Amino acid sequence: MKALIIAAGKGSRLQTKSKEKPKPLIRLLGLSLIERIILTAKQAGIEEFVVVVGYLGEKIKKELGNGKNLGVNITYIENNEWDRENGISVLMAKEVLKEKFVLLMSDHVFDSQILKRLQKTELKKDECVLVVDRAPDKYYIDLEDATKVKVDDDGYILEIGKDTENFNCVDCGIFLLSPLIFSALEQSVKEGDETLSGGIRILAKKRKIKSLEVGNNFWIDIDTIKSYRMAEKILCQKLKKPTDGPISKYLNRPVSIRISKFLVNFNLKPDLISLVSFFLCGLSGLFFSLGGYLYFVIAGVLSQLSSIIDGCDGEIARLKFQSSKYGAWFDAVLDRYADALIIFGMTYGWWKLHLTTDIWFVGFMALIGSFMNSYTAIKYDSIFLTREKSKIKVRIGRDIRIFLIMIGAFLNQIYFVLLLLGVLTNLESLRRLYILRKNNISEA
Amino acid sequence: MKALIIAAGKGSRLQTKSKEKPKPLIRLLGLSLIERIILTAKQAGIEEFVVVVGYLGEKIKKELGNGKNLGVNITYIENNEWDRENGISVLMAKEVLKEKFVLLMSDHVFDSQILKRLQKTELKKDECVLVVDRAPDKYYIDLEDATKVKVDDDGYILEIGKDTENFNCVDCGIFLLSPLIFSALEQSVKEGDETLSGGIRILAKKRKIKSLEVGNNFWIDIDTIKSYRMAEKILCQKLKKPTDGPISKYLNRPVSIRISKFLVNFNLKPDLISLVSFFLCGLSGLFFSLGGYLYFVIAGVLSQLSSIIDGCDGEIARLKFQSSKYGAWFDAVLDRYADALIIFGMTYGWWKLHLTTDIWFVGFMALIGSFMNSYTAIKYDSIFLTREKSKIKVRIGRDIRIFLIMIGAFLNQIYFVLLLLGVLTNLESLRRLYILRKNNISEA
Repeated sequence: MKALIIAAGKGSRLQTKSKEKPKPLIRLLGLSLIERIILTAKQAGIEEFVVVVGYLGEKIKKELGNGKNLGVNITYIENNEWDRENGISVLMAKEVLKEKFVLLMSDHVFDSQILKRLQKTELKKDECVLVVDRAPDKYYIDLEDATKVKVDDDGYILEIGKDTENFNCVDCGIFLLSPLIFSALEQSVKEGDETLSGGIRILAKKRKIKSLEVGNNFWIDIDTIKSYRMAEKILCQKLKKPTDGPISKYLNRPVSIRISKFLVNFNLKPDLISLVSFFLCGLSGLFFSLGGYLYFVIAGVLSQLSSIIDGCDGEIARLKFQSSKYGAWFDAVLDRYADALIIFGMTYGWWKLHLTTDIWFVGFMALIGSFMNSYTAIKYDSIFLTREKSKIKVRIGRDIRIFLIMIGAFLNQIYFVLLLLGVLTNLESLRRLYILRKNNISEA
Repeated sequence: MKALIIAAGKGSRLQTKSKEKPKPLIRLLGLSLIERIILTAKQAGIEEFVVVVGYLGEKIKKELGNGKNLGVNITYIENNEWDRENGISVLMAKEVLKEKFVLLMSDHVFDSQILKRLQKTELKKDECVLVVDRAPDKYYIDLEDATKVKVDDDGYILEIGKDTENFNCVDCGIFLLSPLIFSALEQSVKEGDETLSGGIRILAKKRKIKSLEVGNNFWIDIDTIKSYRMAEKILCQKLKKPTDGPISKYLNRPVSIRISKFLVNFNLKPDLISLVSFFLCGLSGLFFSLGGYLYFVIAGVLSQLSSIIDGCDGEIARLKFQSSKYGAWFDAVLDRYADALIIFGMTYGWWKLHLTTDIWFVGFMALIGSFMNSYTAIKYDSIFLTREKSKIKVRIGRDIRIFLIMIGAFLNQIYFVLLLLGVLTNLESLRRLYILRKNNISEA
């Protein structure tokens, strides 16, 4: 399916921010708005784009090119009359869109899930869809400026417009349209209304446009500095993961998100961040192995710092649509080596100081336990994320392990913390075996 | 879908083997023939069975009961005229089978894949299917006794019978039938032919029965001692896995299959075998840790023995349809702990003898490398099994690691073998990172 993006207008309300940039090129968390829209749509399987440019259109064309850098195909339509209403921009795509297509605004940021659902909507021939939000009182919606929509009980759109009275939802600016929209727009223009809403209104009269409720999926119209800040904040909040442990949730993640928010503006590959985090662990292991309280403290701080930065690779990848299975796996493999380096460093450092042989046994135990936690987590998490949430809230994850190591280093209790890790992590493995057996993971 | 199994006949050609047992209760690799048929069908999603019993039918009913033990539902039909031809047995199920059903013979062992494919065959209303083998010269087919089939270019059956001339395939004894078969059988009986083939012949005349080619899927008609032995052999051969490494392929598997072939006759849960293998590794680690050449040799033998027995749990599970995701995972978790116990034992044992501190470093390296091989194997194997086979034939798997340990123990070279393991396994991890990066495992 093709997507039409209208990016011709001036977007004057965000002028202070944009200076000499057209609004679609305003950067939000490392990507221009229009890049973000395109990559969101790509995530939903759309790879062909038609972009209508107007105001400072050359700059947009120069930045996006033919889309190859984004892994998509972009063609442009120039709308020299960009100061007219947005219906004109849509109308200009009439000749290139002969089948159903998705229509997106260059300043509406949204969750790709919406597009996936939109493409699955069951429709009669020629029927169109507009995504609407049934909760127009959401704090991030500027109701004054929003396009209001009245939807009937069967989900068909009755009325649409900035001044619609008795509305029950607002327009999210995401459409699935058939070429029927072009004749509707032509009629609307003839009648003196050049807005897209004018065309939609004509489809609504013919009962040719349904609504799709956005539900819990995120969308935002970035029209003002205020909504820009909100988009930034919400996108960052969405980086938290359901599998985050307590240390991750309350300590690592809040810090790593701040770091990611900064780093996202540079051209850093997520794999590089993984390597930096790994390097910090290596350094931590080295300091541990030197043996001595001051070294331990430095090593403890380094390991905790590494644990924080370990979140940034995934965060940046998700913010910039660079997530890959390989990247996640590369990070996981490095984490295991990092764990091993720290635990070996601790064991060796303590042994150097105290020459007690049993530290080696304790070190082995901690290493195998840490490993087994990661090894069993793959299966354990996949089962408990798909089933109902596990009743046990705390699980011994990497965030807790590294935090315990830092505390142990500060208290100069390397032996004790390794013993604690060895016991806790191996008990956790046993617990997982028990729970999975009890839940009777049956026939393969 | 329901399955009808005919198990009424006397099967006199296998009498020497069966003594006072009806043929369907003859045991093959830990299961009676009929249990194997039922569990094969269950693997293909069939859970409702109708079994026609006759000769010594009470014994069959007593052994299988209502099917609850096998996780299915079984109802019985008694055919007191079991000495008549097999069409009579099928005809007796007329009243209970009002929709399409699968018809199976109680002495035809086959791959459940055939039934999965059979259920997916696209059919016109009322059409039936017979599974046929296009390669009737297979060494395990007794062509003298086989039912021959002539199939036309569109896959429809033209002729069927023991004496069919110009046949191009043989009947595998697996059918997908509509209730049309009952009137066909009635007609055939009226015309004096009481065989199932008689009914099929009438369907064929009406162009109502198609063929499905068995292709590479295994099936065998167990009619003689010779074919019984062949079935045993082929089912055992199928226990080999494409992921088996060289030591597994040429040493462990041939031995473990022989052990499994014996153990399958006892009521041993596969998990118990996993535990025995783990216990042997623990014992191996203990002997290693005692330090001394004789201990090393014993430990080396124990670890290799454990590695062999480690194959039996999966083999027995597959032979007896007891495979489970949990079982495979339980085995994998125990294997990791077993690896750790052996490597710790080796490290400690050598350290006791020589008091060289660097053995601890080497031991850690070997432990992490072994672990990382198992950790990375999950992703690595899943990618390379679905894509084309990896060009690199040998990979450092557990079979090779344990074999090296045994060799090291015999040569009294614990230090060297740990170093070798540490280097090889960690290089293998790097190689996997490199290969997966090169193959560019793309967007999640």
